[in-house]
Amino acid sequence: MGLMKSWVRSANAAAAPFPLNNLPYGVFSAAGAPPRCGVAIGDRILDLAACERAGLVRAGGALTGDSWNAFMAQGMAEWTALRARLTALLAEDSAERGAVEPFLVAQSGAVMHLPIRVAEYTDFYSGRHHATNVGTMFRGAENALPPNWLHIPIAYNGRASSVVVSGTDIRRPWGQIKGRDDAQPRFAPSARFDIELEMGAIVGMPSTGPITVAEADAHLFGYVLLNDWSARDIQGWEYQPLGPFQAKATATSISPWIVTAAALAPFRCDPPAREVALLDHLKDDGPMLFDIDLSVTLAPKGQPASTITRTNYNEMYYSAAQQLAHHTTSGCPMRTGDLLGSGTISGPERGNRGSLLELCWGGKEPLTLDTGETRRFIEDGDTLTLTGAARGSGYTIGFGECTGTVLPAHPDPYARKTR
Amino acid sequence: MGLMKSWVRSANAAAAPFPLNNLPYGVFSAAGAPPRCGVAIGDRILDLAACERAGLVRAGGALTGDSWNAFMAQGMAEWTALRARLTALLAEDSAERGAVEPFLVAQSGAVMHLPIRVAEYTDFYSGRHHATNVGTMFRGAENALPPNWLHIPIAYNGRASSVVVSGTDIRRPWGQIKGRDDAQPRFAPSARFDIELEMGAIVGMPSTGPITVAEADAHLFGYVLLNDWSARDIQGWEYQPLGPFQAKATATSISPWIVTAAALAPFRCDPPAREVALLDHLKDDGPMLFDIDLSVTLAPKGQPASTITRTNYNEMYYSAAQQLAHHTTSGCPMRTGDLLGSGTISGPERGNRGSLLELCWGGKEPLTLDTGETRRFIEDGDTLTLTGAARGSGYTIGFGECTGTVLPAHPDPYARKTR
Repeated sequence: MGLMKSWVRSANAAAAPFPLNNLPYGVFSAAGAPPRCGVAIGDRILDLAACERAGLVRAGGALTGDSWNAFMAQGMAEWTALRARLTALLAEDSAERGAVEPFLVAQSGAVMHLPIRVAEYTDFYSGRHHATNVGTMFRGAENALPPNWLHIPIAYNGRASSVVVSGTDIRRPWGQIKGRDDAQPRFAPSARFDIELEMGAIVGMPSTGPITVAEADAHLFGYVLLNDWSARDIQGWEYQPLGPFQAKATATSISPWIVTAAALAPFRCDPPAREVALLDHLKDDGPMLFDIDLSVTLAPKGQPASTITRTNYNEMYYSAAQQLAHHTTSGCPMRTGDLLGSGTISGPERGNRGSLLELCWGGKEPLTLDTGETRRFIEDGDTLTLTGAARGSGYTIGFGECTGTVLPAHPDPYARKTR
Repeated sequence: MGLMKSWVRSANAAAAPFPLNNLPYGVFSAAGAPPRCGVAIGDRILDLAACERAGLVRAGGALTGDSWNAFMAQGMAEWTALRARLTALLAEDSAERGAVEPFLVAQSGAVMHLPIRVAEYTDFYSGRHHATNVGTMFRGAENALPPNWLHIPIAYNGRASSVVVSGTDIRRPWGQIKGRDDAQPRFAPSARFDIELEMGAIVGMPSTGPITVAEADAHLFGYVLLNDWSARDIQGWEYQPLGPFQAKATATSISPWIVTAAALAPFRCDPPAREVALLDHLKDDGPMLFDIDLSVTLAPKGQPASTITRTNYNEMYYSAAQQLAHHTTSGCPMRTGDLLGSGTISGPERGNRGSLLELCWGGKEPLTLDTGETRRFIEDGDTLTLTGAARGSGYTIGFGECTGTVLPAHPDPYARKTR
């Protein structure tokens, strides 16, 4: 399948991120109106709240709210029907262009909001190169992968209240820190603040008991870019034995557009060979990974951006479907709007690593930017930007960017009570 | 302060759990009407939705919904005002008895629901005897307490979707399990299913940046009994290095009545002596623990209950206020309805331990019930019940019970999709 042409001309360039093949869903506001649901097409957003009110699309009123949750909860048949209807309305030969065109809004004039109300946020650890790199740094090459790692997609529960949309500034956190050679811990701003390049999978359909891998795949509505901001020095002191907590609770940024599982179907690819056979309940069920190019840039304040890593979502060891299946084994109820972080996605080479921790090997091997500056971890004023693209024949499925600028820590964190 | 007398006679007995001094808040349904807010007094519930509609209390409509979240978000001044108004309405000498009495409902005919919409659930590990017991079993007496334990109230994020109200049956979970001597993991029902006797603190007022210990205390609306059901065999295999996940995701039960911080004020007590000084941001700020007797009974199916442990909430090393202060150090936003589990509350002796893991020392020292049966972990059909009481001079502040019966694991967890 090649490019599907739209009468919105800006959607038809081979490198345009939002062609008719994509149709990603977001929540936007423009011209003083409240946040509402929209779909990106070329350099425009189609106002779906207005379209639903005008009777151009039907979703039981689910598109007039300020999140996609109500629509996601309706399930696969409705997801398929809306996508088909939007494809027809926006196709080059659409007879309804005249009715639709008044509801297009320029992306350049719109503010994007979180596309979902995040119910709960779970962060996995399913990138093998990342787990191997981190394990090697902390436990040595012989014990790099934890014993359970090849058997289950291990994870911890993250903090949903800290998920923010791309573009939100990130305040460098304070925390309790104790270095290996410190006699006592101290309360100080994090000096090892980092990114984690991840994808986020969004649960559309809820569940109340264990679900199979195949069922789990059909519960996933779509995908976003995700940056799990991480304070490595806070993490090092707090994480044993209960896992990461405040080190990961400052913020997690996601890209504003949900690229649907349907749009990504042409980019499905096979999981890796299994060194150890997976138990039946986690077994691979067809091509459940996705071929999506990922990269990160770092721009010091007022300076141009340097690309610091390039990798691909197909480096995952476990698919989002396997993660969701594991998540339900205990009977854990899953809800519409649950967000599953993939875990940091690193590739095999140094230039493919998804965190500064790995890129600079714990601070020992500084990274040189295009500007000549070096970095071990994030410095105040740095802007970190994740991008993603699935590359089809003559078209691109883009995600929009996932960006954030790190502000200096407050001199006194208790003097000021707002973010 | 002694017993405050009410014209609801059943509230005036010294051992009655819901005297006028208590006034705990819950959500109930009765006589086919939908769930709504109520306050317990003696053996009755005062229907606060009806009272608000009748103009007897004013809370901006917050009492007519099916949770306490809207009211909790209004803050301390409103909390104080409602308590004062209810105290006046229900006092022995109230002139408004005639107007209020029609809105009393018998507790025996009511169904209790979750009193809050749980925003997120965090489980701490702040009981020193518990942490010492578990650490001794897993790492030996020399390394029982993790190095960070005396410096921060460590915690992991739990799963809010799995929080259920007392009385909900608990289905024994399946999970991936690998014993120390097993060559490979297997997928099987948990054979080491356990309770954790905890208290839960409920965040009423939200926050968006670091808050002090004193500020944190004023954000806490009230307290419930909490049983964090735990699959020890699943936990043993999954928890390194990211902490507990599916082992704690089957269910967490809470008691139906929120006992307010105001009702517990007379029972505040001092924290323990600090072996290692706390850093300034976590320092004790007055008497922030509570003297509340706690116990657990176990009843095998169709048989009488045996008390298996007695302890007290004053065994905590960190207060809920210190836990909440730590939770916000990173800037983590806290929301109305966040639930903070205390961690398992064990006392110094065997008879004071808050989990079967500790009571039976990992299964090595079976417990003999009053019926002569023995237990190492929970068996199918067992009913576990937590109770709590703060004992004043001539009155008692009760919590209502937190109970659950464990049902057998499904023969095939994938054959059936409901809890």
